[in-house]
Amino acid sequence: MRILVTGAAGMIGRKLTARLARDGALGGRPITALDLHDIVPAAAPDMPGVDIAVHTGDLAAPGAGESLLAGRPDMVFHLAGVVSGEAEANFDLGYRVNLDGTRALFDAIRLAGHAPRVVFTSSIAVFGAPFPDVIPDEFHLTPLTSYGTQKLVGEALLADYTRRGFLDGVGIRLPTICVRPGKPNKAASGFFSGIIREPLAGQEAILPVPRSVVHTHASPRSAVNFLIHAAEIDGAAVGPRRNLTMPGVAVSVGEQIEALERIAGAKAARLIREEHDETIWAIVKGWPTRFAARRARELGFKAEESFDEIIRAHIEDELGGKIPA
Amino acid sequence: MRILVTGAAGMIGRKLTARLARDGALGGRPITALDLHDIVPAAAPDMPGVDIAVHTGDLAAPGAGESLLAGRPDMVFHLAGVVSGEAEANFDLGYRVNLDGTRALFDAIRLAGHAPRVVFTSSIAVFGAPFPDVIPDEFHLTPLTSYGTQKLVGEALLADYTRRGFLDGVGIRLPTICVRPGKPNKAASGFFSGIIREPLAGQEAILPVPRSVVHTHASPRSAVNFLIHAAEIDGAAVGPRRNLTMPGVAVSVGEQIEALERIAGAKAARLIREEHDETIWAIVKGWPTRFAARRARELGFKAEESFDEIIRAHIEDELGGKIPA
Repeated sequence: MRILVTGAAGMIGRKLTARLARDGALGGRPITALDLHDIVPAAAPDMPGVDIAVHTGDLAAPGAGESLLAGRPDMVFHLAGVVSGEAEANFDLGYRVNLDGTRALFDAIRLAGHAPRVVFTSSIAVFGAPFPDVIPDEFHLTPLTSYGTQKLVGEALLADYTRRGFLDGVGIRLPTICVRPGKPNKAASGFFSGIIREPLAGQEAILPVPRSVVHTHASPRSAVNFLIHAAEIDGAAVGPRRNLTMPGVAVSVGEQIEALERIAGAKAARLIREEHDETIWAIVKGWPTRFAARRARELGFKAEESFDEIIRAHIEDELGGKIPA
Repeated sequence: MRILVTGAAGMIGRKLTARLARDGALGGRPITALDLHDIVPAAAPDMPGVDIAVHTGDLAAPGAGESLLAGRPDMVFHLAGVVSGEAEANFDLGYRVNLDGTRALFDAIRLAGHAPRVVFTSSIAVFGAPFPDVIPDEFHLTPLTSYGTQKLVGEALLADYTRRGFLDGVGIRLPTICVRPGKPNKAASGFFSGIIREPLAGQEAILPVPRSVVHTHASPRSAVNFLIHAAEIDGAAVGPRRNLTMPGVAVSVGEQIEALERIAGAKAARLIREEHDETIWAIVKGWPTRFAARRARELGFKAEESFDEIIRAHIEDELGGKIPA
């Protein structure tokens, strides 16, 4: 089977690509071709005998979608997007990439005419405060960021294009992915990872919001598991409501820090410096906290059970299983 | 004040224009200029001393929005749109008019920079089955038509553009407007009016769905009242959730027919012929039935209290107060 991944050079894109390379198959079918797309060249994995093409460019540019669909991929993972902080700071860029780019890709798939499975990474940013204690699957969508608005539009198009038979979409609303490896990005949620990742590496981390903030997390490993499960799931079982809130671990920032202390000691936790940032706080306080995620759990999507488990996944996957001395 | 009305040649647009002409003012400010836009020329009302301009064209065409905003209207009523049946039959037309046209207008307003109140007519088609008995204001948005999808996108843009200060939007989700005067249009909901309007005029009407179908209605008169109230309401009282489900009268088709019989006699009711239409039924069965509409009621939006009242409004407003012999 041929697989197209957009946003392939991003953190999740790289991990998904590595997983596909490791598995060599998806849904029981061997992978014969892989198209990797991003605005910068994605690294091609080592997959002997697989036809790998690296594409670069702006998805919203004329002809970009058509060119990516030329090989008629059986499976499309649409991960490309500008992150929340950037979409808020740059109105035009956010709408162009997250809305126009997504629509252009979906239209190219529609015009290709073979209705492949399309896994779309949406976000819990489609929800907006005020919230009930636990957000049910039927809760309304009132985003409080441009990023959340753009993801909501992507979800709406995905569902309508699926209903019309143009594609076979599954939208997965990712909770905050934590612990993100590598350097901080411009996402307003970046500190949730920073306060774990930096201390584990012996570095200081800034906490820009109160310790009482409750948030739902899943590891990068779980995010890839969600994507693979969304690719393999029976569309009929999902039904017409194609956008699913993924499960995760709901904890306060204080509980995150306690988990860090349990695993890496008090010295690590002392590397977190509280420095309130009004801009980040203004975004974060509009975010949801806990989700029922009942449908996703019933459909077999699985996340970690505790934040300790999330930290251990980071240590295993990024630090070779050991906390640096 | 200068007012811009898109979709001014449509049924609601004409009634809104007539109301504005009659009132001569909006929110206590005299109307000094009126821009009427539609794809066909809207009839200019008789308003001495008011600068009336009739504009025609495709809102999504390059420069169309900018040209409409040249006069910097203080108030924009965005009613333009392709109806549900047409948006379902013609994918490209629906997306072009309902999504691209709306976005082009909102972007022209954004670029004009004076952040006028924008009243956007959305629809209860943003909801999709299955439903609870009464749909709360917090119910999720899972449209089952392209029309509903396009309205959902319009709502999302309206809320985000309001949050960013580009405009001051109020989206009103209209229930089915009944009794629509004039000829049937291509809306899948057309029969809800037809089964009242045609018999009152001594004509046969087709009922394409079962009598048990429950649906929420408001008169054209109420629709205009909603628009005026949405134009005048304090934005701070609405808060960030700018899209409101309007109140209405929830009745079954059978109850509609009983009301007709009470007001116009058994002879009128006998003019309704049941002829099942699978295409219309497929759309209608995905539609919502009853709404709480709690926020809209609290914010002062008012509809009729009974379907009898809706029929009487039609007789008063369209038939000169009398049922033709």
